[in-house]
Amino acid sequence: MTDKKIIEQLINTLTFDRNGLIPAIAQQYNTGEVLMMAWMNKESISNTLMENRVVYWSRSRQSLWRKGDTSGQIQKLLEFRWDCDTDTLLLQVDQTGVACHTGRRTCFFNAIKDDKIAVISDIKIDPDILYKQ
Amino acid sequence: MTDKKIIEQLINTLTFDRNGLIPAIAQQYNTGEVLMMAWMNKESISNTLMENRVVYWSRSRQSLWRKGDTSGQIQKLLEFRWDCDTDTLLLQVDQTGVACHTGRRTCFFNAIKDDKIAVISDIKIDPDILYKQ
Repeated sequence: MTDKKIIEQLINTLTFDRNGLIPAIAQQYNTGEVLMMAWMNKESISNTLMENRVVYWSRSRQSLWRKGDTSGQIQKLLEFRWDCDTDTLLLQVDQTGVACHTGRRTCFFNAIKDDKIAVISDIKIDPDILYKQ
Repeated sequence: MTDKKIIEQLINTLTFDRNGLIPAIAQQYNTGEVLMMAWMNKESISNTLMENRVVYWSRSRQSLWRKGDTSGQIQKLLEFRWDCDTDTLLLQVDQTGVACHTGRRTCFFNAIKDDKIAVISDIKIDPDILYKQ
């Protein structure tokens, strides 16, 4: 759990967009896999650092999104980084199971391969199991 | 060089924001380092795929930004990926030298370490040398 004064100092350092949001990239700390990109606001940053568990801001639901609350696929926070322009976050995380709602390990499973649009990752967990009930 | 019909198909697949932009994460293909995040529009995506060299859209200059034209620190494109929501890109690149204008390998050199805000990467190339003349 990060000290509240440091969280306040961090939030004053970061640059938020007109909607009060900042993009956050989640990377698996030990494999380097880029898992997903989502958005954070001040409150989600604060919660993430207080819990050491990643909490995003859901733009579609306009509410805090404690990653894994529904699916169980949580992201433990290991290190909180940000860039030279102070407008993008890079979270070193330990992902339980899969990051993507499609049941794939990473959300970045589409690619151009051999001059064709292709799916390059397999489904690891059936989404019906992830989101049952 | 990607076929023009595939580029057109890709651009029709992707979701751009109200400014016609989409965020693009650049990752070093063999080490997994997340180097930077910048923005692309349709033209910069098309140029990137035609040249196999990364071209962003500079929001501050409102112009195409052929990464490395000034500094020599180009990004060769190795694979073009995108996510489940079709609104974020993940570029597998081979970065010449350093990605960051501060002379660091990656732009994500700020972190919270031991409850303090810290710089976690060294300067590899003096920015005065990168941007001389």
